[in-house]
Amino acid sequence: VMKIVIIGAVAGGASAAARARRLSEDAEIVLFERGPEPSFANCGLPYYVGGKIESRDKLLVAPTERLRQRYRLDVRTLTEVTQINRQQKTVTVRDLQSGDTYDEAYDKLIYATGASAFKPPIPGIDGERVLSLRDLPDADRLHALVRSKGGPSTAGSPDTPQRVVVVGAGFIGIEVVENMVRRGVETTLVELSDQVLPPWDQEMIEPLHGLLRDEGVRLRLADSAERFEESESGLSVHLKSGEVVDADFAVVCIGVRPENVLALEAGIACGDRGGVITNPHMQTNDPDIYAVGDVTEVRCAVTGEATQIPLAGPANRQGRIAADHIFGRDSEYRGTQGTAIVGVFGRAAAMTGLSEKVLQRTGLPFEKVYVHPADHAGYYPGATPMSLKLLFSPEDGKVLGAQAVGINGVDKRIDVIAMAIQAGMTVYDLEEVELCYAPQFGSAKDPVNMAGFVAAGVLRGDQPVVHAKEVHESAMGDSSGPYFLLDVRTPSEFSAGHVDGAVNVPLEQLRERLEEVPRDRDVAVYCKVGQRGYMATRLLMQKGFRAKNLSGGFTTYQNVDAS
Amino acid sequence: VMKIVIIGAVAGGASAAARARRLSEDAEIVLFERGPEPSFANCGLPYYVGGKIESRDKLLVAPTERLRQRYRLDVRTLTEVTQINRQQKTVTVRDLQSGDTYDEAYDKLIYATGASAFKPPIPGIDGERVLSLRDLPDADRLHALVRSKGGPSTAGSPDTPQRVVVVGAGFIGIEVVENMVRRGVETTLVELSDQVLPPWDQEMIEPLHGLLRDEGVRLRLADSAERFEESESGLSVHLKSGEVVDADFAVVCIGVRPENVLALEAGIACGDRGGVITNPHMQTNDPDIYAVGDVTEVRCAVTGEATQIPLAGPANRQGRIAADHIFGRDSEYRGTQGTAIVGVFGRAAAMTGLSEKVLQRTGLPFEKVYVHPADHAGYYPGATPMSLKLLFSPEDGKVLGAQAVGINGVDKRIDVIAMAIQAGMTVYDLEEVELCYAPQFGSAKDPVNMAGFVAAGVLRGDQPVVHAKEVHESAMGDSSGPYFLLDVRTPSEFSAGHVDGAVNVPLEQLRERLEEVPRDRDVAVYCKVGQRGYMATRLLMQKGFRAKNLSGGFTTYQNVDAS
Ligand SMILES: Cc1cc2nc3c(=O)[nH]c(=O)nc-3n(C[C@H](O)[C@H](O)[C@H](O)COP(=O)(O)OP(=O)(O)OC[C@H]3O[C@@H](n4cnc5c(N)ncnc54)[C@H](O)[C@@H]3O)c2cc1C
Ligand SMILES: Cc1cc2nc3c(=O)[nH]c(=O)nc-3n(C[C@H](O)[C@H](O)[C@H](O)COP(=O)(O)OP(=O)(O)OC[C@H]3O[C@@H](n4cnc5c(N)ncnc54)[C@H](O)[C@@H]3O)c2cc1C
Ligand SMILES: CC(C)(COP(=O)(O)OP(=O)(O)OC[C@H]1O[C@@H](n2cnc3c(N)ncnc32)[C@H](O)[C@@H]1OP(=O)(O)O)[C@@H](O)C(=O)NCCC(=O)NCCS
Ligand SMILES: CC(C)(COP(=O)(O)OP(=O)(O)OC[C@H]1O[C@@H](n2cnc3c(N)ncnc32)[C@H](O)[C@@H]1OP(=O)(O)O)[C@@H](O)C(=O)NCCC(=O)NCCS
Repeated sequence: VMKIVIIGAVAGGASAAARARRLSEDAEIVLFERGPEPSFANCGLPYYVGGKIESRDKLLVAPTERLRQRYRLDVRTLTEVTQINRQQKTVTVRDLQSGDTYDEAYDKLIYATGASAFKPPIPGIDGERVLSLRDLPDADRLHALVRSKGGPSTAGSPDTPQRVVVVGAGFIGIEVVENMVRRGVETTLVELSDQVLPPWDQEMIEPLHGLLRDEGVRLRLADSAERFEESESGLSVHLKSGEVVDADFAVVCIGVRPENVLALEAGIACGDRGGVITNPHMQTNDPDIYAVGDVTEVRCAVTGEATQIPLAGPANRQGRIAADHIFGRDSEYRGTQGTAIVGVFGRAAAMTGLSEKVLQRTGLPFEKVYVHPADHAGYYPGATPMSLKLLFSPEDGKVLGAQAVGINGVDKRIDVIAMAIQAGMTVYDLEEVELCYAPQFGSAKDPVNMAGFVAAGVLRGDQPVVHAKEVHESAMGDSSGPYFLLDVRTPSEFSAGHVDGAVNVPLEQLRERLEEVPRDRDVAVYCKVGQRGYMATRLLMQKGFRAKNLSGGFTTYQNVDAS
Repeated sequence: VMKIVIIGAVAGGASAAARARRLSEDAEIVLFERGPEPSFANCGLPYYVGGKIESRDKLLVAPTERLRQRYRLDVRTLTEVTQINRQQKTVTVRDLQSGDTYDEAYDKLIYATGASAFKPPIPGIDGERVLSLRDLPDADRLHALVRSKGGPSTAGSPDTPQRVVVVGAGFIGIEVVENMVRRGVETTLVELSDQVLPPWDQEMIEPLHGLLRDEGVRLRLADSAERFEESESGLSVHLKSGEVVDADFAVVCIGVRPENVLALEAGIACGDRGGVITNPHMQTNDPDIYAVGDVTEVRCAVTGEATQIPLAGPANRQGRIAADHIFGRDSEYRGTQGTAIVGVFGRAAAMTGLSEKVLQRTGLPFEKVYVHPADHAGYYPGATPMSLKLLFSPEDGKVLGAQAVGINGVDKRIDVIAMAIQAGMTVYDLEEVELCYAPQFGSAKDPVNMAGFVAAGVLRGDQPVVHAKEVHESAMGDSSGPYFLLDVRTPSEFSAGHVDGAVNVPLEQLRERLEEVPRDRDVAVYCKVGQRGYMATRLLMQKGFRAKNLSGGFTTYQNVDAS
């Protein structure tokens, strides 16, 4: 019988094992897991720490007993694989409880070791009060710290709130922050970049900075931890800026690195960023060894380039594909699109495909538009606005990426656009998609249609757009700058705040006041979100003016400006 | 200059006008609207009646003043077009206030009259107490009736609750019912079909029957109103079953008919169901006359057949396309997929593409699967189950339709599958789609992936399925019926209710108890939702048994059985 050995028994590994069992009732399947439990919900760890998930048992998605009984898997927890012996087709393992070491033979090996929290060589980072959050033991430590008010701090009375420094504002850092605040812990968030959630584009994320501050988070952007100094009573985190933040403990969430040591030692090919290289069947350069999940390098589904995108969905599906291929099926992984979402204080930020940052880096031509629609019909109570950015090819309109931030319905729109990307659809297709509409759920023209309308209008030349950065430069210069700035909002909107140097002619009066707009200059029109600006742009263009619309209007402008 | 005349100034008509203005600042655009207001939210009417939308003004999406000032449209409300004079290229109109009649010339005419509530020739249906809900005046009438407790009833004290009979349980009928209950009106719902929401498949909707009853709705399925008898004190609704329901008023919601009279009279071609026939540019057989919205016949985007699907999104997009074509653009309508959603008492029912009913009617080959996943990760608080049915081609796996019912996240999954249909994707594509995942929003294997896995497994022969109807027949026969019924749930699940004649062997014990399963018979395996049944099926198939899995498990079975 076929003997499959799997290193790592969580998202990728356990999924591969489960699928392998369904494909072969007879196969011998051994799962090695260093940690205390297989198949746990990594993604739930921050919420367990924060008390949102009350019971630790909930995190055990498929407990050992179920894997044994239902799937007939040979699960060996607290057992670490220490070496892959490709010649012998064995792995060397150590039982972490007994200390015993033995070799286990395989026909096929699945390497699913995941990625470990990156800890750069900063003085003091290995101290007891400097934690990270990857696995159950990490979560247990943090949980024990925060659930008892006052925690390990001896700095004050037991009622003194605890203080934490979270280093790194990627999605795990943000989730940790939210859950620390949930626990009443005074939280400082330090991030090297000038924004939280660096994979997103800055102007989309800007509103979250205010939100975090409103929730009491002390935000330290464009700064970094340089030294951790531990004392009996706490921890001092020395920042690059010179600031010293006193805390009870720190959580370092500055990214993950493929847990590739065994692979490297065994001569399994890894990419530049350390991920194990596989073919679409998840096979490594050793055809008997597969690699799945965070430890692998993936192909970006949009650019085709090699990259690292550590996400649970891809890990699960890759595990399934590896099992398929072992049993002679030709399932192929299609690459990772980078569809991701994070919730924080009632907001959601989601993205799929390429960001503007990545597009700039790759040099691919792109155009972008912003819309700020409501999640459902405005006339039905409870509608909330979202910001949606669509990135697309100026050549054929192909959708390249999208980002959305808002309270409700953000996940839905990004999922819909993720489908468009997967299907190779264009902005012209988005104009025509037919989505669910009743007033509680959407609009007759869904935000996705709207984004499609606007983007298609840009490509058709109906709506030439100018972006906030250019307008900003215009506003910063004197009034003879490149653009004449025309604000078509109402006077009261205008007086509540506008772009420096802009002239206000409300859309409703524009037809009668055309003489106030110069014919010999480029005109940048704007309104609150871009829609009235678009109508004014159409009007002006047809009357012979050189008009462009500020995409996303004053709303997007303010977020870009703020940076 | 181009002169465009539009008949009907709401979803299709107003959208066409708005787009036309953007495409041509100079065009003369006249909008005739019989009703008091243009551009109102038809879809919000039930919620205004129910008080969920408090202010009537909210229903006026683009009030007359805005259409005039912002869009420079010549809006003429309370003005009815009474004739289309194709030879002269004029329409004859009557000012409903002054009674004046005049002709208005057009270069291009857009016919956007919508659909009127169908009122079959039942005795008494034209009485004062028998209402329907299509437009603002209808809504005003109903609103006035229900907001004052006791309403027009003189049958008791002013505190006696009002009573209504809603005839027809399509999505408008259901929305009316919800809002009547919201107002404290005692509600009887009469529906000819044996289920509410007839466009959906019965087993998907079955759970809503219990929900409606739990909310106090008196449900009369497979029955119909035959006679309305009005008295001073109220209304008696005589049902086909013989039952007489006393009420204060009735609301008839038994579908709509294209408001096609002017078209027919003018010799504009209409289809069998009365809808105006157009080409993909929304042009009728008279190239100067376009038709958009509910008054048109549309092509089903999946089958290509002519059909009537009265929905707001299509009406809006068709209006936009007609305007495009008038100004020389080749925009084409792609047909209607039938993506629809309705909310009722905290539940949502959504669908896209073809239902099983329609598939049966068309004779297209299809297969189906059911899954009952949670809307988000089960380990995160607040997860709620949904039922999702996927219909697909057994030949190439192409997705043909989907339906979902649940509390949360139903709209998202149907929208995602609507995209798959639009893109011509298959169930194999659904296996690989990459959707947003964090535990509040979804699962690492999203319900859409799950439906894809199961459907692909069926097509690959990994998971032969049997459907509830067949199993039901087996259960009704003696124990030597076609299937040996194997329940692989736990003994406590089994004893709480099972299929008649089933034998219980929990999945966890199946490997040790194989001798209890006959080798010479077809075995129908089931569990609660289908997942353990699948694993048992895999196990049995590989051990030489003739096993099939009951798709959707006992959950789907119970809903089919109940009918
Ligand atoms: C706090 C947190 C929150 C997250 N939230 C999300 C989210 O919301 N959405 C999302 O998509 N993703 C999220 N992720 C990422 C997601 O969990 C990972 O992408 C996914 O778990 C990767 O699966 P994997 O199988 O590759 O690795 P893992 O799930 O990490 O499993 C690898 C396992 O291998 C074991 N192992 C490693 N080396 C050895 C060895 N030598 N011997 C034996 N065992 C070994 C490890 O102990 C580990 O348990 C989150 C991750 C974390 C840590
Ligand atoms: C109560 C209700 C709830 C609904 N809910 C939803 C929903 O949740 N989702 C969804 O997608 N759809 C919903 N709909 C359907 C949606 O409103 C229609 O599909 C859409 O409005 C059709 O647009 P239309 O322009 O074709 O017709 P309409 O919007 O009906 O507009 C036609 C207009 O033409 C006018 N008119 C007709 N004849 C003449 C004439 N001879 N002269 C002058 N004017 C004339 C009428 O007065 C009417 O105002 C709902 C409809 C109703 C009634
Ligand atoms: C749970 C785990 C062990 C995988 O087990 P699995 O059996 O593949 O589990 P799933 O619940 O995902 O079920 C998917 C399977 O059930 C089938 N299935 C699901 N619902 C079904 C239904 N109603 N009817 C029939 N089959 C069904 C699917 O087809 C699929 O089988 P296939 O892969 O052979 O096609 C693994 O995913 C895991 O350990 N997860 C937790 C860790 C993790 O993912 N962490 C990161 C996120 S927090
Ligand atoms: C409102 C109504 C008059 C249409 O007007 P409209 O100007 O087309 O309005 P919308 O709000 O839909 O805006 C869409 C337009 O704004 C543009 N737009 C939207 N947001 C934009 C933004 N942020 N930046 C630039 N342009 C934007 C779109 O591109 C589109 O223009 P296009 O069609 O030329 O591409 C018409 O749809 C209507 O009467 N609706 C109410 C009735 C109804 O639909 N009932 C049924 C449902 S309840």
